[in-house]
Amino acid sequence: MSTQPTATFTAPAAADPGADGADAPERDVRFRSDVAVELVKSSAADADVLFAARVSTAGEKSLDEVGTDAERSAGLINYLMRDRHGSPFEHNQFTFYVSAPIFVFREFMRHRTFSYNEESGRYRRLEPVFYLPGPERKLVQEGKPGRYVFVDGSAEQHALVETATRRVCTEAYHAYLEMLEAGVAREVARGVLPVSIYSSMYATCNARALMHFLSLRTKREDSTFPSFPQREIEMVAERMEEHFARTMPLTHAAWNRNGRVAP
Amino acid sequence: MSTQPTATFTAPAAADPGADGADAPERDVRFRSDVAVELVKSSAADADVLFAARVSTAGEKSLDEVGTDAERSAGLINYLMRDRHGSPFEHNQFTFYVSAPIFVFREFMRHRTFSYNEESGRYRRLEPVFYLPGPERKLVQEGKPGRYVFVDGSAEQHALVETATRRVCTEAYHAYLEMLEAGVAREVARGVLPVSIYSSMYATCNARALMHFLSLRTKREDSTFPSFPQREIEMVAERMEEHFARTMPLTHAAWNRNGRVAP
Amino acid sequence: MSTQPTATFTAPAAADPGADGADAPERDVRFRSDVAVELVKSSAADADVLFAARVSTAGEKSLDEVGTDAERSAGLINYLMRDRHGSPFEHNQFTFYVSAPIFVFREFMRHRTFSYNEESGRYRRLEPVFYLPGPERKLVQEGKPGRYVFVDGSAEQHALVETATRRVCTEAYHAYLEMLEAGVAREVARGVLPVSIYSSMYATCNARALMHFLSLRTKREDSTFPSFPQREIEMVAERMEEHFARTMPLTHAAWNRNGRVAP
Amino acid sequence: MSTQPTATFTAPAAADPGADGADAPERDVRFRSDVAVELVKSSAADADVLFAARVSTAGEKSLDEVGTDAERSAGLINYLMRDRHGSPFEHNQFTFYVSAPIFVFREFMRHRTFSYNEESGRYRRLEPVFYLPGPERKLVQEGKPGRYVFVDGSAEQHALVETATRRVCTEAYHAYLEMLEAGVAREVARGVLPVSIYSSMYATCNARALMHFLSLRTKREDSTFPSFPQREIEMVAERMEEHFARTMPLTHAAWNRNGRVAP
Repeated sequence: MSTQPTATFTAPAAADPGADGADAPERDVRFRSDVAVELVKSSAADADVLFAARVSTAGEKSLDEVGTDAERSAGLINYLMRDRHGSPFEHNQFTFYVSAPIFVFREFMRHRTFSYNEESGRYRRLEPVFYLPGPERKLVQEGKPGRYVFVDGSAEQHALVETATRRVCTEAYHAYLEMLEAGVAREVARGVLPVSIYSSMYATCNARALMHFLSLRTKREDSTFPSFPQREIEMVAERMEEHFARTMPLTHAAWNRNGRVAP
Repeated sequence: MSTQPTATFTAPAAADPGADGADAPERDVRFRSDVAVELVKSSAADADVLFAARVSTAGEKSLDEVGTDAERSAGLINYLMRDRHGSPFEHNQFTFYVSAPIFVFREFMRHRTFSYNEESGRYRRLEPVFYLPGPERKLVQEGKPGRYVFVDGSAEQHALVETATRRVCTEAYHAYLEMLEAGVAREVARGVLPVSIYSSMYATCNARALMHFLSLRTKREDSTFPSFPQREIEMVAERMEEHFARTMPLTHAAWNRNGRVAP
Repeated sequence: MSTQPTATFTAPAAADPGADGADAPERDVRFRSDVAVELVKSSAADADVLFAARVSTAGEKSLDEVGTDAERSAGLINYLMRDRHGSPFEHNQFTFYVSAPIFVFREFMRHRTFSYNEESGRYRRLEPVFYLPGPERKLVQEGKPGRYVFVDGSAEQHALVETATRRVCTEAYHAYLEMLEAGVAREVARGVLPVSIYSSMYATCNARALMHFLSLRTKREDSTFPSFPQREIEMVAERMEEHFARTMPLTHAAWNRNGRVAP
Repeated sequence: MSTQPTATFTAPAAADPGADGADAPERDVRFRSDVAVELVKSSAADADVLFAARVSTAGEKSLDEVGTDAERSAGLINYLMRDRHGSPFEHNQFTFYVSAPIFVFREFMRHRTFSYNEESGRYRRLEPVFYLPGPERKLVQEGKPGRYVFVDGSAEQHALVETATRRVCTEAYHAYLEMLEAGVAREVARGVLPVSIYSSMYATCNARALMHFLSLRTKREDSTFPSFPQREIEMVAERMEEHFARTMPLTHAAWNRNGRVAP
């Protein structure tokens, strides 16, 4: 608002070299084949499902469930999962830090029930870290759309992917730096950067949204509904699922037992 | 799913007398003029805003903000609020237990960014507790729609409201019990219950959604945008705001300073 | 905003007798056993699913699908439904007008993907129309919570429900009028009105949200996941489903064929 | 589901050369400096705001507003906008086709109230079309984060951006084709493609969500709250705003008059 007194706001850039360009940029382009997922904070336990579910039949007495041992109520959690009573799984929260290539974030952010904050290519010089498929990454797609199967690539194919990725990403990053050094704005210069460049973000969700995400972003034989995620987002999802299983073990088990269908 | 093995689920009703009707129902109708709000659990601090905001300029280094003292960054929080950068205020969570009349819940549940679980009139015999406006409740509405002003009621008006409320609610509740005792289903019998009957629920949200709720459900002279909430939901909102102010004091102060506009 | 020039806004109440209380209120309480659902407007066709789905493989050429005959693409719609590709079912819209008892609206508005506007008990004198279960309404609930079965009521039970409903609703409405006539604000006086009073609203959604709603609010043997809706909201849902089936017949058929699971 | 009969689904790829790789790919890389926005379909008129708003005071009589001339009710629309009554602006729908660089889509898809379907780099060979900033694009960023100002670039800077963009994008696309021709899966090969490559999508929203989007993605002196969008998404937003202004002129005017704050 124009009549608002200006806040005495010290630019957050002060402590972030990448943001003001004053420091010498790193020129060495690095390649990774993994992703990073940390559970930054959470407020989630199986007992959170119970007080929420029990309020329907117990009213105020459901408050007694807060913080209790959920073990004896595994049956109730399984029942809620099986019959898809979803809302009791929403009173909890997970905040993940994720570092992965931009093409993974593009798929991730289609999930509209999460909250996101991501590193900005407008406010910060992006770092020279790119994704290179590892040797175990299946490179060849067979079959029809919607039912693709991936098989191993040959040594030649792996070599080609590695050579091409290293060459293009390195040239692109150097062109990016050249533009920055000539005074071109970061948001313009970044146009040349490949989608395999890494970014970082915080993603926050509740268990219901998380189960929905996992059901779509992991490929499992025991799923009621099949999903065919790209391997790289599945790598992120698998790490998220480990945190989920550790934090809400009864809920995770019930979801698995019921075909990995989000309630 | 029909092929799913049936879970060995013991009905949650077992521990809830109201749910199976086996216990003797309470016949004495009670009246209250207040609401109850408890902060059941939360995972929220001003520092949660900071790591989320700083990832845009600091990337991975923003992880250093997790759990820090936010005091020195009040300027950043104020800047985010003023310019309405809303997403950093989403990585936190508040779960409230609320006990209030049904007509309050009707307004409350229009807020679609919250998660809800409420006592069920289908699965449980509702308790004989009704809302009666207290002596300080302004009873008379003056002015035009959208710009109503409320003024005190006369002694006669208060007496009339009290007499009518006590009479109708008592008769309604006794008719409800009569139907239940004759074997009529709770979901049918409850049709006669007035909207002033109390219910209870869990409502979960993040700070951004909470500020939006509070901006619409409290009436304050210093708001940039005027709101005209019904007094009873405002009573709930005021209690929620106390919890918010205590949990995220810098965020609450910045929101107040910037006209109570949700970012 | 305080600096905003005041709009020359003529109160909407002018044309609405109920809103200003100037007209003589109706004292005769009426009872209904049905609900009303109208499809006020829609922008929805099976072809809308096709352009949205085809953009993934055809890019700009998918524009050719807009407005085409979808018949030859029933297989694609079925495939999307079966494998739960949900987003192509979102590019369409239905706006319903619904008139039903408040206890139905309470359940309806838990669906957070719809848009709502409802008649206001704060801005308008509510009309004396209440719900009375019809002779075909099963009155007796048997079995365990979560797996209730409803069976017919006896003649005595029906007589009791009718007598009690008529008596309580009539007394309540007259108490409401008495308070209004004594100058008590509508929002206070309405506290005595039973949840069986009718209200009206507009509810807007897309086909994906609609299928989710219908899967939870209709009880069908052929559903993959069982639902046990209260009969009165199911009456609303059945009317909505008729409109859906007529507007997007291939989508409706594919949803039915795949266990009525929302994609 | 495993017990589901397999649909006789002919792969959608059949009609889409890019999807099966059978056709000869285009090798000539093209550059554009514009974006494309089409209003594919809409169900939106100022009158839609009126019936939704009037139901609160007029109940069923609000149905008379459906399809009427809204002109005489401009005051009501302005009042709703000014006091931020948002829900009446949700009963309408716009579906846009957008063709723009991926870095624009990345910002666009942060808006979680829209529905999206986008061209897929997994299911289709992406076309060789890239974004090159036009001569009028300001290239140099000055000032502090959160308050940047953009100024014209020099001829040298423009030349550098053009040379670097053309070189990197061309090499990247040829490396992409080389990998595809060697049998590498599209989803792997695309890793080298720069974020300036064009994609296409359908984006569907209602007027309330659209106003929120426009308030954040256009930079205007007369906005109550300042926004600093990247120019390229602003180009998309400006085209969307033209369609909005033409389809709901009274709503657009009221929004402009009230500081471009989404209600």
